[in-house]
Amino acid sequence: VFPTQFRMAEKFTIENPDVTYNKDYIEAVYPYQTTHVYEEDGSIKVKPCSTKFTFRTERKVPKLGVMLVGWGGNNGTTVTAAVLANKLGLSWMTKTGEKVANYYGSLFQASTVCLGTGPAGDVYVPFKDLLPTVNPNDIVFDGWDISSMNLADAMVRAQVLDWQLQEQLKPHMKKFHPRPSVYIPEFIAANQEDRADNLIQGSKKEQVEQIRKDIGDFKAKSGVGKVIVLWTANTERFCDVIPGVNDTAENLMKTIECGREVSPSSMFAVASILEGCAYINGSPQNTFVPGVVDLAIKHKVFIGGDDFKSGQTKIKSVLVDFLVSAGLKTVSIVSYNHLGNNDGKNLSAPEQFRSKEISKSNVVDDMVQSNPILYKPSEKPDHCVVIKYVPYVGDSKRAMDEYTSEIMMGGTNTIVLHNTCEVCQISVLFGYYGGFGARQRTCIENI
Amino acid sequence: VFPTQFRMAEKFTIENPDVTYNKDYIEAVYPYQTTHVYEEDGSIKVKPCSTKFTFRTERKVPKLGVMLVGWGGNNGTTVTAAVLANKLGLSWMTKTGEKVANYYGSLFQASTVCLGTGPAGDVYVPFKDLLPTVNPNDIVFDGWDISSMNLADAMVRAQVLDWQLQEQLKPHMKKFHPRPSVYIPEFIAANQEDRADNLIQGSKKEQVEQIRKDIGDFKAKSGVGKVIVLWTANTERFCDVIPGVNDTAENLMKTIECGREVSPSSMFAVASILEGCAYINGSPQNTFVPGVVDLAIKHKVFIGGDDFKSGQTKIKSVLVDFLVSAGLKTVSIVSYNHLGNNDGKNLSAPEQFRSKEISKSNVVDDMVQSNPILYKPSEKPDHCVVIKYVPYVGDSKRAMDEYTSEIMMGGTNTIVLHNTCEVCQISVLFGYYGGFGARQRTCIENI
Amino acid sequence: VFPTQFRMAEKFTIENPDVTYNKDYIEAVYPYQTTHVYEEDGSIKVKPCSTKFTFRTERKVPKLGVMLVGWGGNNGTTVTAAVLANKLGLSWMTKTGEKVANYYGSLFQASTVCLGTGPAGDVYVPFKDLLPTVNPNDIVFDGWDISSMNLADAMVRAQVLDWQLQEQLKPHMKKFHPRPSVYIPEFIAANQEDRADNLIQGSKKEQVEQIRKDIGDFKAKSGVGKVIVLWTANTERFCDVIPGVNDTAENLMKTIECGREVSPSSMFAVASILEGCAYINGSPQNTFVPGVVDLAIKHKVFIGGDDFKSGQTKIKSVLVDFLVSAGLKTVSIVSYNHLGNNDGKNLSAPEQFRSKEISKSNVVDDMVQSNPILYKPSEKPDHCVVIKYVPYVGDSKRAMDEYTSEIMMGGTNTIVLHNTCEVCQISVLFGYYGGFGARQRTCIENI
Amino acid sequence: VFPTQFRMAEKFTIENPDVTYNKDYIEAVYPYQTTHVYEEDGSIKVKPCSTKFTFRTERKVPKLGVMLVGWGGNNGTTVTAAVLANKLGLSWMTKTGEKVANYYGSLFQASTVCLGTGPAGDVYVPFKDLLPTVNPNDIVFDGWDISSMNLADAMVRAQVLDWQLQEQLKPHMKKFHPRPSVYIPEFIAANQEDRADNLIQGSKKEQVEQIRKDIGDFKAKSGVGKVIVLWTANTERFCDVIPGVNDTAENLMKTIECGREVSPSSMFAVASILEGCAYINGSPQNTFVPGVVDLAIKHKVFIGGDDFKSGQTKIKSVLVDFLVSAGLKTVSIVSYNHLGNNDGKNLSAPEQFRSKEISKSNVVDDMVQSNPILYKPSEKPDHCVVIKYVPYVGDSKRAMDEYTSEIMMGGTNTIVLHNTCEVCQISVLFGYYGGFGARQRTCIENI
Ligand SMILES: NC(=O)C1=CN([C@@H]2O[C@H](COP(=O)(O)OP(=O)(O)OC[C@H]3O[C@@H](n4cnc5c(N)ncnc54)[C@H](O)[C@@H]3O)[C@@H](O)[C@H]2O)C=CC1
Ligand SMILES: NC(=O)C1=CN([C@@H]2O[C@H](COP(=O)(O)OP(=O)(O)OC[C@H]3O[C@@H](n4cnc5c(N)ncnc54)[C@H](O)[C@@H]3O)[C@@H](O)[C@H]2O)C=CC1
Ligand SMILES: NC(=O)C1=CN([C@@H]2O[C@H](COP(=O)(O)OP(=O)(O)OC[C@H]3O[C@@H](n4cnc5c(N)ncnc54)[C@H](O)[C@@H]3O)[C@@H](O)[C@H]2O)C=CC1
Ligand SMILES: NC(=O)C1=CN([C@@H]2O[C@H](COP(=O)(O)OP(=O)(O)OC[C@H]3O[C@@H](n4cnc5c(N)ncnc54)[C@H](O)[C@@H]3O)[C@@H](O)[C@H]2O)C=CC1
Repeated sequence: VFPTQFRMAEKFTIENPDVTYNKDYIEAVYPYQTTHVYEEDGSIKVKPCSTKFTFRTERKVPKLGVMLVGWGGNNGTTVTAAVLANKLGLSWMTKTGEKVANYYGSLFQASTVCLGTGPAGDVYVPFKDLLPTVNPNDIVFDGWDISSMNLADAMVRAQVLDWQLQEQLKPHMKKFHPRPSVYIPEFIAANQEDRADNLIQGSKKEQVEQIRKDIGDFKAKSGVGKVIVLWTANTERFCDVIPGVNDTAENLMKTIECGREVSPSSMFAVASILEGCAYINGSPQNTFVPGVVDLAIKHKVFIGGDDFKSGQTKIKSVLVDFLVSAGLKTVSIVSYNHLGNNDGKNLSAPEQFRSKEISKSNVVDDMVQSNPILYKPSEKPDHCVVIKYVPYVGDSKRAMDEYTSEIMMGGTNTIVLHNTCEVCQISVLFGYYGGFGARQRTCIENI
Repeated sequence: VFPTQFRMAEKFTIENPDVTYNKDYIEAVYPYQTTHVYEEDGSIKVKPCSTKFTFRTERKVPKLGVMLVGWGGNNGTTVTAAVLANKLGLSWMTKTGEKVANYYGSLFQASTVCLGTGPAGDVYVPFKDLLPTVNPNDIVFDGWDISSMNLADAMVRAQVLDWQLQEQLKPHMKKFHPRPSVYIPEFIAANQEDRADNLIQGSKKEQVEQIRKDIGDFKAKSGVGKVIVLWTANTERFCDVIPGVNDTAENLMKTIECGREVSPSSMFAVASILEGCAYINGSPQNTFVPGVVDLAIKHKVFIGGDDFKSGQTKIKSVLVDFLVSAGLKTVSIVSYNHLGNNDGKNLSAPEQFRSKEISKSNVVDDMVQSNPILYKPSEKPDHCVVIKYVPYVGDSKRAMDEYTSEIMMGGTNTIVLHNTCEVCQISVLFGYYGGFGARQRTCIENI
Repeated sequence: VFPTQFRMAEKFTIENPDVTYNKDYIEAVYPYQTTHVYEEDGSIKVKPCSTKFTFRTERKVPKLGVMLVGWGGNNGTTVTAAVLANKLGLSWMTKTGEKVANYYGSLFQASTVCLGTGPAGDVYVPFKDLLPTVNPNDIVFDGWDISSMNLADAMVRAQVLDWQLQEQLKPHMKKFHPRPSVYIPEFIAANQEDRADNLIQGSKKEQVEQIRKDIGDFKAKSGVGKVIVLWTANTERFCDVIPGVNDTAENLMKTIECGREVSPSSMFAVASILEGCAYINGSPQNTFVPGVVDLAIKHKVFIGGDDFKSGQTKIKSVLVDFLVSAGLKTVSIVSYNHLGNNDGKNLSAPEQFRSKEISKSNVVDDMVQSNPILYKPSEKPDHCVVIKYVPYVGDSKRAMDEYTSEIMMGGTNTIVLHNTCEVCQISVLFGYYGGFGARQRTCIENI
Repeated sequence: VFPTQFRMAEKFTIENPDVTYNKDYIEAVYPYQTTHVYEEDGSIKVKPCSTKFTFRTERKVPKLGVMLVGWGGNNGTTVTAAVLANKLGLSWMTKTGEKVANYYGSLFQASTVCLGTGPAGDVYVPFKDLLPTVNPNDIVFDGWDISSMNLADAMVRAQVLDWQLQEQLKPHMKKFHPRPSVYIPEFIAANQEDRADNLIQGSKKEQVEQIRKDIGDFKAKSGVGKVIVLWTANTERFCDVIPGVNDTAENLMKTIECGREVSPSSMFAVASILEGCAYINGSPQNTFVPGVVDLAIKHKVFIGGDDFKSGQTKIKSVLVDFLVSAGLKTVSIVSYNHLGNNDGKNLSAPEQFRSKEISKSNVVDDMVQSNPILYKPSEKPDHCVVIKYVPYVGDSKRAMDEYTSEIMMGGTNTIVLHNTCEVCQISVLFGYYGGFGARQRTCIENI
């Protein structure tokens, strides 16, 4: 095999006039090609277009701090523990042998990209080595949670990691204490109430102020160059978008000032934007009401993210995409999910489930719309999504799906799927985290 | 919606200097971009390259004839019946309502392609309308089978189509009689012997001559402009590649002449090439021994095709591709299949199964090789493929798969899948047939 | 094999002083053995007891009439059609060959009982031949439905039977018209409203009168010796049991008289009892409020039946029974169901679903209570039941279950099950019908 | 609840003249009722018969020793470890909380029996308390294995128990060393050769002598009152039954003497019988050739046991029994199994698989024969059994089954099942062990 196939980060250079290297930056000019379809003189014309973008990537990766909202939850504790275990190079015994901390399941850390063809066939590089990115081991974590439990105890409560690994992590994890957070009972399920013992007091305005102070405090104490705020707290119910209340940046700020309805997640987004920190949303609720988006644009701060799409939803889009693009007419999709962790408990309340359901249902709509041969204008497959809270299964998420598709001449294809997924959420988180590093790349201008 | 979204074939034009239209042809210059990786002065360089191809597509679609080897089998009768039903616009009643003949499940006939962005969003066209292609309804069928049964009776034997549809097709189908074929018992399972009542007599040389005459006869009688030969007969056992026997075109022709070992499928390929007809292979055996490839190149005839990859194998590659490229380490893949049709009966013999097994096993190798982060040089997932003959299930193919993947920190993801597929083979066949039309496009030169 | 193994009905005699035969009856004295556990002088005693019952069975089977409430539904039309098809000896073609009408799936018609050991091994007789029972082919059907559709059209609407069979049955079925019925909107789902075009007018008292007249009319016209009324109409919501309203026969009759709340099914039960006809309930609602039971006892009329337990529920009790009695601790049972017929549509309304859910959940309670080694007094497995309405799957009921059980030393056993069941309801109905014949047996006295 | 519901062993007495208690024994007279079917004067007669058996059970339970052939295997180490863990009252932590050693999954230790009806409903007692039985915690273990590994290392190799539990057991387990055993390569798979480092030398006769000495030695050193020998070594290939070789006790003894073909398991059975020890067989091979049975009868020693029927096979018989006895015609049963332990490795060899396959296939034959309404004399469902060796899954046995059954009028019922079973073998073993205790009961005479 080609000897330099592994770990070739920073070691290759692009021989292309469109890519220039200097001490601080790598700059690449990229022609983004699209096609326009239009009518002219009664006939349809198709015309290719090209827009040039210049991407500039800093060669020196800054020290990154990540603040998690919901730090004491399953995602929060697991991601913190996973990074710690990798950093410390931990290993532990199980009945099937020794396990070593790794980043399997992380798009950025464990997947590869084909660089091109070498003398001995295709050459692959790790995705993370394509451009300078933050090594996740170097990330510094902090965060908020409405539950005051220290992260060692919270990790035990989460029941995600092997016990032997937990034992090794405990002395390190118990030093982490989530900062008090904003708790507005009507936004999450009533069954979460017992956890809420670690709250920021005061008016909404004061609460936003406190979040901003927390960010500043973290930056100062940890010495990180850049802070990203990530919502991995419980799914909230949807928030009504109301003119005068949350439709513009200005109205939203007023709403916060006078204490009218605003969701905790929107308050965190506002505080992050005002501190100039990127804000990533990992839950399905509509944190990004128009007022938040408006504020982000005004402050030129990156906000983004939608429900972390974990196992089943992703597999569904892969399968339906395959079926429909192979010309099969998928006519019925039934997705049953159950899980027994605190996320499941919160989602067992109807309003919170509704946020999740919408997020999970959309996934097939695009595919259906893309194939007007199979689906008439208003036609859609039957699509039903169920999420149930079954305490016994704990953090092991179960999905049972049934896909029925019609084939030529009255035939049918039925796929029945049972998926058991443990620890999968963090694979998704690392998709995002990996992303943070990459986002050191900034698109500086379009030509 | 954009009003011309449907059936826009031939109605749109490309406004691009690289595409030119004239009375007979559409000519497109296409820059094919690749990347080369090489070592220079001890460091790795990556350099983009571009090759220009000119594609010329005839605007007038010729009348196409398709000759099936194994015409009386499940695939052969179903594809003939399906085209007939579509051409006649047949419909039939079932308990769930009226069914209408369609081409669902055919990549070419039922899938769409995004043309570009119009004033009201993305514009999709049917794949078949991208370029002038043969309408499958216009294909004329003929073929060979070692079983003399007429196609109406063979369709009943196949047990694939709804009975009510069969009733309507019978008067048409019973006019079709497969031509006698080449039968060499050691190449297919012994359990196929009873069917073999329709054989070309004589030496191997005479048999090849007869096939050539059959092609000529069909062309003359049907008036088609172009003939394609498609192997959809039973899976043969692998054929040893032996220097002096089948390693060059010349040696292969000598082997046929003196009656040494050559598989029936290679004989059909040779006859097709000599008649200048494209030859498509739909089974997993190694029809294309070096001597056949050599002959095809010498006669500039297109040969191609590998096992029609039906349901399970396709879904497997889609799933494993998704898992591995998401950074999960797939560690065990177990694929159980059972079917009860004549294909299954033939495959229940060990040597024929072997051909199929190899074809089905390869599917994950590429993915594994593409990710050296997850898999060490000689590491591979456990992969086991079983095919069983279970008469009761008939033509309804069942697949039961289990995929186990490792995620970060000792977690696992297990996907269990049960797939029931009826009539799915023809979806695949139509992928090919659609392709025939498109292959009127010929790459005329590279600049 | 023992030559008289098949169809030995009436042909065997019991050589036992406890069984006596005369012209009209077979009389059997049966010692029913039980065990009593009691405390005496501080220690536990276990004492066997025996009660003698005498069963008298009429040797001449009367002509049986069955009146179905919900005759035009899937169960109603299918059971009527199935009996007709068996009586007429119908056969029809499908792609997999000729099908012949049969009673597979009926406990009474298709199962066997071991009679004892003969010279050549065990001797089995069909269950239905154990004692004189009604041949289902001889049953005369009639019934009520809130939908006026004739039974031929209703059979088409039901989408249960093969089309080719429907075609043959139509001329016979279209002669049957359901009698008008009682419709009280608040008891079934609002989505059933469109069907309700065939209603008995008048006060509740008048409605009960009309049902009684219908029974009399049917008896007179058909000449049957015995009528059984069977509720196979939609699941109703639960009815509150209220002292003074439905707690005694007397109060219930008063309630009907003055038009207070009473469910249609209770009204049918009352009318049947007053006419001296056995009443069988096939749905999960609480038709048998104390007042109905009281009335039945007073009139010495048989009433009985609970939700027809179809496929999944039955399989669940079989599996859980097996697991728990093998000493495994079943800790989580998740049952997802979906169906697309009118029953499913009705059950998609929360109150009707609730009746069904209760009926389906009870099934494991007994098993748990029977094993105090595995389950502590108040301990129960997680048990979740979901029923969804997915129109596409029609009458093909799908069940997806997951059972998790703990074994010794931290091991677990997980069973995942996918069940597709077509036409299964009638198997259950025939359990009951077969029962009717057997119920000619009456227990005349206990000694 | 009835207060004495739990742990009522020895505490209840039967008030029945048929049961007598004295100081040493409990004696019960049990009428075993059967029915005879015969022809007389051209008509079939059915006559009940009753045979009286007297069962005598020793009230004092002897100290029991169990010698395992294959002690170092997964079953052997797990059962030894499980008993030790229960005896020592061990507990260990896992991510889902503390686990405590238990006997869940053992028919004898974890299932209950209904004793009768008490003042507050049914009264259940643990099965093990029905009659005086050996407490498994008191069993003393010893055994043989062709692998010399001590039981601590062998337990690690087995990968069955949680690591935390293994850690606690190691100091105890490492004191156990399997005695050398008989190894005849042609009886187990060639892939087992590496393990064979602990062999009894000498002729077959000398080997049998050595086994007898081992039994005597164990008895003497451990002081147990009773020894049972249990084969839990690898499945052997079938042994030909040859007149003159193994058809009588005498011939078999001669065969051993002169060193002709006899399987290791038959040699162990012979040695046990000669030592007066019950011999239980846990594998599917035909250890009990006629000569062994003959010898056991002559020496009045109990021999018994057939393949330990674990998870899938048991569930199959439960399901098929349910289906067929409900009148459904099961027409196709496809059973795929894979496992990755050493048992699976041995079974991956064709001859050893054959023994297992026969054992697993028989399971449905009885049910089919019991229902001549559904199955014509020579008719059988399609039944296919596959066992595959998939190293990754280790000791976690996977079963994927598909059952198709026909119901009335052309309907079908399809059950698809995926079963994951860990540690399940020992549940079965304990069925047997529990049994040992009970076998202190001896049937002393029939009246
Ligand atoms: N776990 C997964 O695989 C996936 C999770 N998600 C979403 O990610 C979110 C987190 O999931 P998990 O960590 O499993 O849930 P979790 O319930 O274990 O953790 C959420 C944490 O948020 C805290 N919290 C709630 N409201 C808060 C507030 N206002 N401020 C600060 N902390 C607050 C809770 O106390 C809890 O510790 C959920 O919305 C879930 O739907 C999305 C996709 C996949
Ligand atoms: N059915 C499917 O979904 C797929 C099928 N395939 C492959 O396609 C092939 C055909 O499949 P089916 O139509 O289902 O099988 P089939 O067994 O129904 O039909 C094969 C036909 O070929 C005939 N035949 C055998 N040897 C012949 C010869 N030397 N010359 C002429 N005719 C000959 C047989 O008589 C039979 O009528 C098989 O190799 C199968 O493995 C591949 C992928 C999917
Ligand atoms: N189909 C099955 O496998 C099983 C069905 N069941 C129960 O049996 C019942 C019937 O099931 P299907 O026949 O499938 O449903 P269906 O919805 O097809 O039929 C019910 C019929 O009852 C009629 N109906 C409703 N209210 C009525 C009233 N007050 N008087 C007279 N007719 C009335 C409806 O118009 C309809 O024709 C349901 O309660 C269902 O839950 C129970 C177990 C299994
Ligand atoms: N594990 C299970 O759930 C079930 C197992 N069985 C049967 O029980 C048997 C044992 O199963 P496992 O313990 O899982 O297998 P294993 O392969 O882990 O253990 C077998 C042991 O027997 C030893 N051995 C082989 N030949 C021997 C000989 N001649 N004398 C003494 N020792 C010998 C081997 O070295 C090995 O340690 C197999 O036949 C299997 O088919 C049956 C039903 C269920």
